[in-house]
Amino acid sequence: MANEKNVTAITARDADFAQWYTDIVKKAELADYSSVRGCIVFQPYGYAIWELIQKAADKRFKDTGHVNVCMPMFIPESLLQKEKDHIAGFAPEVAWVTHGGDEKLTERLCVRPTSETLFCEHYANVIQSWRDLPKLYNQWVSVVRWEKTTRPFLRNVEFLWQEGHTAHATAEEASEETLSMLDVYADIAENVLAMPVIKGQKTTREKFAGAKATYGIECLMHDGKALQAGTSHNFGDGFARAFGIQFTDRNNQLQYVHQTSWGISTRLIGGIIMSHGDDNGLVMPPDVAPVQAVIVPIAQEKAGVLDKAREIKGLLADAGIRVNLDDSDKSSGWKFAEHEMRGVPVRLELGPRDLANSQAVLARRDTGEKVTAGLDNIAQTVLELLADIKKSMYERALARMNEKTYKATNMDEFEKTINETPGFIKAMWCGDDACEEAIKERTAATSRCIPFEQEHIADTCVCCGKKADTMVYWAKAY
Amino acid sequence: MANEKNVTAITARDADFAQWYTDIVKKAELADYSSVRGCIVFQPYGYAIWELIQKAADKRFKDTGHVNVCMPMFIPESLLQKEKDHIAGFAPEVAWVTHGGDEKLTERLCVRPTSETLFCEHYANVIQSWRDLPKLYNQWVSVVRWEKTTRPFLRNVEFLWQEGHTAHATAEEASEETLSMLDVYADIAENVLAMPVIKGQKTTREKFAGAKATYGIECLMHDGKALQAGTSHNFGDGFARAFGIQFTDRNNQLQYVHQTSWGISTRLIGGIIMSHGDDNGLVMPPDVAPVQAVIVPIAQEKAGVLDKAREIKGLLADAGIRVNLDDSDKSSGWKFAEHEMRGVPVRLELGPRDLANSQAVLARRDTGEKVTAGLDNIAQTVLELLADIKKSMYERALARMNEKTYKATNMDEFEKTINETPGFIKAMWCGDDACEEAIKERTAATSRCIPFEQEHIADTCVCCGKKADTMVYWAKAY
Repeated sequence: MANEKNVTAITARDADFAQWYTDIVKKAELADYSSVRGCIVFQPYGYAIWELIQKAADKRFKDTGHVNVCMPMFIPESLLQKEKDHIAGFAPEVAWVTHGGDEKLTERLCVRPTSETLFCEHYANVIQSWRDLPKLYNQWVSVVRWEKTTRPFLRNVEFLWQEGHTAHATAEEASEETLSMLDVYADIAENVLAMPVIKGQKTTREKFAGAKATYGIECLMHDGKALQAGTSHNFGDGFARAFGIQFTDRNNQLQYVHQTSWGISTRLIGGIIMSHGDDNGLVMPPDVAPVQAVIVPIAQEKAGVLDKAREIKGLLADAGIRVNLDDSDKSSGWKFAEHEMRGVPVRLELGPRDLANSQAVLARRDTGEKVTAGLDNIAQTVLELLADIKKSMYERALARMNEKTYKATNMDEFEKTINETPGFIKAMWCGDDACEEAIKERTAATSRCIPFEQEHIADTCVCCGKKADTMVYWAKAY
Repeated sequence: MANEKNVTAITARDADFAQWYTDIVKKAELADYSSVRGCIVFQPYGYAIWELIQKAADKRFKDTGHVNVCMPMFIPESLLQKEKDHIAGFAPEVAWVTHGGDEKLTERLCVRPTSETLFCEHYANVIQSWRDLPKLYNQWVSVVRWEKTTRPFLRNVEFLWQEGHTAHATAEEASEETLSMLDVYADIAENVLAMPVIKGQKTTREKFAGAKATYGIECLMHDGKALQAGTSHNFGDGFARAFGIQFTDRNNQLQYVHQTSWGISTRLIGGIIMSHGDDNGLVMPPDVAPVQAVIVPIAQEKAGVLDKAREIKGLLADAGIRVNLDDSDKSSGWKFAEHEMRGVPVRLELGPRDLANSQAVLARRDTGEKVTAGLDNIAQTVLELLADIKKSMYERALARMNEKTYKATNMDEFEKTINETPGFIKAMWCGDDACEEAIKERTAATSRCIPFEQEHIADTCVCCGKKADTMVYWAKAY
């Protein structure tokens, strides 16, 4: 059977998670490799997912007062060097342009790994008075980081993202912005992508190069590894001092602005695969599924079947559902397997018998469950099914995250847990970098965040045994 | 008066067209310079225009069956060299990445000046059978060309664009695609941007590096210079042969695909400025105006004025109009000048007397004309006014293009016309490259296109006097 053949063509998820992931990227036609190491081709299906994520995020950014801009892709070396922590963090992983045509450049340009320095240069030009604040800017671009080890969507040399960059009159406003954008990211992850998150602050060791404080949302993948799904940084006035971004306040005093930046990227697509996918392929959260419902006519050569299928397609499309009709000459089994691989949330099967009974079979991708539904009101039925699928996907992912969240009070317990039942480990930490480093060396787990929702696990640091007040989420991470 | 001050702050269009253009870019806050020569910052207002152009174009691309993808920004030198004409055309103007972090690359990578080679590499990977065709791909990205002389929007080192790349089973299909996308571009220019176009084919000398045939749409700017606003290329099977892109046809024969590519860019924003702008600044075509109507309350401190203004804002927004209410503490004169500079198509003035009479004053940006309109049905009135503004803007631009289109039958006439009354010159051409070159050297005018709508101007070539059957549009161009 075509169905079986296609299904067995991908590695089982529990047999080899990494290979299963790669198989889905390829078989669902999300991305293709290019001849430049670590740079991928976003194929139509993969890019369509990104467009839907963009649309959901962009709406939220605009609703919260942000506007889009576009900075150049090149940063002169001297500009990148203006903020010391920033250059130290990024210099080892940037691509350098040294020649334009035949001419050697007098100064090297890096291809942006992130655009803080460009925004700062522009802000220094355009911000003069308190009337010019806040600046709530965002851009949708690609960035380049010369990573040694790459994996499609999760870690690419070039990846697509958005980077918000804001400037404010006060430290309080910048702090509020940083946290409110973290909430926007959590909303996107949970309510659009059905991926539950832990919100918290990054440790000093894990924070962004140049930031005063970094916050993140962390998701847990099916294999028990964590994925940092979005970050939001509060720069205080550090960049403003380095770049001389000053304004005259209402009292005619010269002040430095306070800045933030925040980003989500195409690694969210990797997160979708690893949060929801199964042995039959991708399982798309309905809100970002390029196709939300596919109609597969059964015995489509029989009178009336295709006509009815087209009519139903029209009804679903009118209701705002992204719907396809697969009337190709492939077998039904082949079609089922193909649309399952692509994770289409709902399959609507319609054959001559269904036609006679004025009904259709609805198969949901997330559970495989099939129900028979009357054709009256079919669009409403599919809409309700899509809403239920989203809810169920979130609940299953949340239940899994909870199941795979453990506690540890000493390093033996920590190590045993992370090796035998990978997941989040909640453990107390004294705040010392050295402990964080020691934990990483011994277990390969890193601090994911200091969650906003604290819990008292023990009185002492899981590593050094000294007094500890802070509970941290730890995990191996992508 | 604030109004006068602001207006006199830009150079008069007829006094110094180039400076007038630069003044608008700056004063309307479309773009800012960056520290990298020829790379600009798209500020919120400029980028919002681009987003609206993108939306109009993307809808048309998707309606005609195209899908979006995203290729890497880097092209290995060896890949760029595969098609000989192509590399010869682009090599002198590409930026080269030679280092990643501290490591010297074994092969240089260029930052894409255009992406034919990347699409070809991908197509060679994914096209096997006639079932895989056609491929109708597009991408929205930025590209880099190391230009010596740059000018915001018109000629940048980095600019934003879309590039469509398609692969077809037959030469006929590729030819149809090339011409149908040219029609889509003409539709966008004329019906979205209110810029009339001449459609035609490029001469061999002006065609794209690697193309079999290039077609373009040409617009005439206010100063009588031409702007190439979009191009569409038919590659035949030239790239397919260079890259080995073959498929098995329905008869099981191996065939090369036939390809096209087509692009429009942010230079359209330059086209809008130079087609429609006046001494008061930008004049935005309503369909891509980030703000279509601005409400300016007069004596806004008087009871009821602001409340009514907010109510009207709500009504216009509900009707799908992009509307702003300027309730800042600036003077009305200042506000008028500022929104005129930004080219907002309709200004709605509302004062206490208007309120008493249940009316508002509507001022149209394109003509400066003011009318009084009743508040009943105000949204409908504004919608009709916007439609009329678009129509009038197109008609005025068309009348100007027709006025500034001349004929020449010999070189003295040609030279006198282009120097004294710059515009399009229609003249016969024998088809010889040498004549084209000679015309350019003597007059600085280039062949813009061989228009689809031919006209018999004379029996002989304007340059050499030999027999000529082809009428060409010539002009000095951006």
